[in-house]
Amino acid sequence: MKQLIYADHAATTKLDVDAFEAMKPFLLDEYGNASQPYALARKPKRALQEARAAIARCINAAPEEIFFTSGGTESGNWAIKGVALAHPEDRTNRTNPASGAAVLTSSIEHHAVLRACEDLQKQGYPVAYLPVTREGAVTAEALESAITPSVRLTSVMLGNNEIGTIQPIKELCGIAHRTGSLFHTDAVQAVGHVPIDVGDLGVDLLSASAHKFNGPKGIGFLYVKKGTPIAPYLNGGAQEFGMRAGTENVASIVGMAVALQKHCDALHENMAHLRDLEARLMGHLLAAGMDFVRNGSTDRIPGNMSLSFKHADGEALLHRLDLKGICVSTGAACDTAVTRVSHVLRAIGLDEDYARGTIRISLGASNTAEEVDVMARALISILT
Amino acid sequence: MKQLIYADHAATTKLDVDAFEAMKPFLLDEYGNASQPYALARKPKRALQEARAAIARCINAAPEEIFFTSGGTESGNWAIKGVALAHPEDRTNRTNPASGAAVLTSSIEHHAVLRACEDLQKQGYPVAYLPVTREGAVTAEALESAITPSVRLTSVMLGNNEIGTIQPIKELCGIAHRTGSLFHTDAVQAVGHVPIDVGDLGVDLLSASAHKFNGPKGIGFLYVKKGTPIAPYLNGGAQEFGMRAGTENVASIVGMAVALQKHCDALHENMAHLRDLEARLMGHLLAAGMDFVRNGSTDRIPGNMSLSFKHADGEALLHRLDLKGICVSTGAACDTAVTRVSHVLRAIGLDEDYARGTIRISLGASNTAEEVDVMARALISILT
Repeated sequence: MKQLIYADHAATTKLDVDAFEAMKPFLLDEYGNASQPYALARKPKRALQEARAAIARCINAAPEEIFFTSGGTESGNWAIKGVALAHPEDRTNRTNPASGAAVLTSSIEHHAVLRACEDLQKQGYPVAYLPVTREGAVTAEALESAITPSVRLTSVMLGNNEIGTIQPIKELCGIAHRTGSLFHTDAVQAVGHVPIDVGDLGVDLLSASAHKFNGPKGIGFLYVKKGTPIAPYLNGGAQEFGMRAGTENVASIVGMAVALQKHCDALHENMAHLRDLEARLMGHLLAAGMDFVRNGSTDRIPGNMSLSFKHADGEALLHRLDLKGICVSTGAACDTAVTRVSHVLRAIGLDEDYARGTIRISLGASNTAEEVDVMARALISILT
Repeated sequence: MKQLIYADHAATTKLDVDAFEAMKPFLLDEYGNASQPYALARKPKRALQEARAAIARCINAAPEEIFFTSGGTESGNWAIKGVALAHPEDRTNRTNPASGAAVLTSSIEHHAVLRACEDLQKQGYPVAYLPVTREGAVTAEALESAITPSVRLTSVMLGNNEIGTIQPIKELCGIAHRTGSLFHTDAVQAVGHVPIDVGDLGVDLLSASAHKFNGPKGIGFLYVKKGTPIAPYLNGGAQEFGMRAGTENVASIVGMAVALQKHCDALHENMAHLRDLEARLMGHLLAAGMDFVRNGSTDRIPGNMSLSFKHADGEALLHRLDLKGICVSTGAACDTAVTRVSHVLRAIGLDEDYARGTIRISLGASNTAEEVDVMARALISILT
C-alpha cells in the first residue's frame, strides 16, 4: 500500500504512543473500580487525581474544575443543557410568556452545540444566533447588539472546526459577563493547539475532546469554573464530585492527560512548524496560479486550511486525493441526495462557485514538508 | 504482595485479554474517524458494523437496534429521559395540571435510573415508585395496582446490583404494554451473565455496560426496539443513525463486542460454575454456624451473594477482608459521617441488626473453589 498522508487532524488524530503505554496498565492489571474503598482501587484513584491535576495545569484551572466526560459532544451538551436545567425559570411558558433569548450562540458552532441549542428550543428555552463576519468572526459589536439581560448563557467556540477562525473569546466573555450572562466556549479544536488560560479568558465553561490532541476517542472534559450554576447531565453515582455519574474510565483519562501534557509542552514548537507547513502549501498553490480562496480569519487554529477552489467539487476532490493516499475532509456536509454547502460556509457568505469546491486540510505536528509538497502536487494535478 | 482474590465483579471486571488484543489495532494504527468517507475509515467502519451485529446477536436484536453509549449510566439516563423528551405533553403544568405518573419505576433501581427519574421530576414529569417484596422482587400485582394509562414508561431493572434479584421482566413488560406503557430494563448486571432475548422479554429499551462483562470501561449500549419513540440525549453529529452524536469510540466498541461474545458463548458453563461456588461458600458459612441472612430471591444474578451478618459492621468487614487481599463491596452506601443502610436494603425491609453488617460478594467466572475456601475462612475468622 502506498504511503498514507494524513491531513485530517481536525476530524481525529492518531493516539500518542506514550499515551497508549500509560493507558495499558489501567486496561490490563489496575482494573479496580476507582470509587471503591479497597487497596485495588488505590492506583486508579491516584491516577485519576494526577490526570485531573495535569489537565488543569495545561489550561490554568484548578483540578476540581475539571470534569471528565465521554468526549466533546457530551461536554458541549452538558455545558449548554446543564445551565438551562439549573434555570428552569428561563423556559417560555404561561408564567414567563415574553422572555427574550436564554441562550445566545453563533451561527457557525459545531453541531454538538447547535443541535443541543435546538433541543433546548424544543423544550421552551429561547435561543438566538449571532452572525459572523466573512472571516467567520463573532465581533464584539455583534454580541453587544444582541445580548440582553435575559441571556443566561453565551456560547461561542474558541476555534472553528471547518475554517479555523479563532474568536476573540476574552473580549466576548467580558461583554457577556457585564450583562450577567455565563460564558461557554467549545474549545474542542483549540485545546492542545493554541495557548489556553481559562483565568485569562474568563470563561465559565470550556469543552474539550481527547482525540483531537492525540488522546483516545471516547473521552473528554468540561471545565466548570468554581461556583458556576450548572446541573449534572448524566445522573447516577457520586463520581466526579457528584456532577457526572458513571464508573471512571481511568485508562482513557490517563491517556488523555499524557497526550495533552505532551501537546502543551511542545505547543509553540508545533505552532511554528504548522505555520511553516501552511505557508509552504499556500506558496505552491499560488505559484501554480490556482483560483481559490482560503477561508477563515488570519488568526486560525494552526494547521487548519479550508480551501475553496472555483468551480471544483469538494466531494470529488476528496475522493481523488484519497486514491492518492491523502486524507482530507470536505468543508461541506453531505447527504446522499445532494452536495450541500455547510452551515459555516453559508454563514460567512462564501460565493457558491467557490463553496462547492471546498476541502479542509488539517495538518498535524507529524506532517512533514515533503508531505505538503506531495499534497500540493496532487491538488494542482487534479485541478488544473 | 499476597495473592489478590477479586470478588467484586458487580462493581467492575478485568478486561478480557482477547478484547484487549482486538482493541489494539483500533487504538494504534486504524485510527481513522469512522464517519469519514476515505479509505482510512473503511476498517473502523466495518469493525463498527461487525461489533453491532455481534452484540445484537447476543441479545436477539437487530443490529440497527443497538446504539453505542459511554456506559450504563448514559444508557439508563438516555432511555428514561429520551422517552420523556419525546413526550413533553407528559409534564405537569397549567395545560396538564392533574396528570398521573408519567414514569413508573421500582424503589430498588440503580442510582443511574433513580436519579434520572428524580431529575425528570424536577422537570415536571411525575414519577411513581413500585414497592418490592422482602426478596427484592417487583410483583405482577404491584405493577398492576400502580399502573395507569398516564404511564408512558415503566423501568424495572433485570437484575439488582446489590442483592442480585432477577425480576419477572417478561411478565411485567406484558402488563405495562397492555396499559400502553413502554418498558425499559436496566440490564447492566445481567447482560453476559444470564440468557437475554429481547424478543422473548418484549422490552422496548435495554441498558448495558461493557465493564460488567470484562469489556472496557467507558462504553456500553442501549437497545431500542424499532419504532420506539425516543429522542436523542446527546445531540450533534449524525453518528449512530442520528440518535447518539460523538465520534465513534471504535476500539472500545470492538472490545465490548469480543467480551460479550465470549460471555455469551460460555454462558451456561459460567452460570453452573458460579452456582457451584455460591453453594460452596454457603456450605462453609452454614457449617460454621454463623448468624446471617442471604438477601435476594432464589432467582439471582449468578455469583451475587449479598450477606448480612448479625451485629457486624459491613464497612469494617470490607476493610478487614481487604487487608487479607480479598476485594468485596458493602451492600450499604457510606458517607463520611455515618454508615447508612442502602436504599435497596431499606426497601426489602431488612432488620437493622443485619442490614448494617452487609457485604456483597460478587463472584466471577475466573474465581476458583480454592479462592472461595480462603474467603470463607477469612469471614469466619473475622466474625467469630
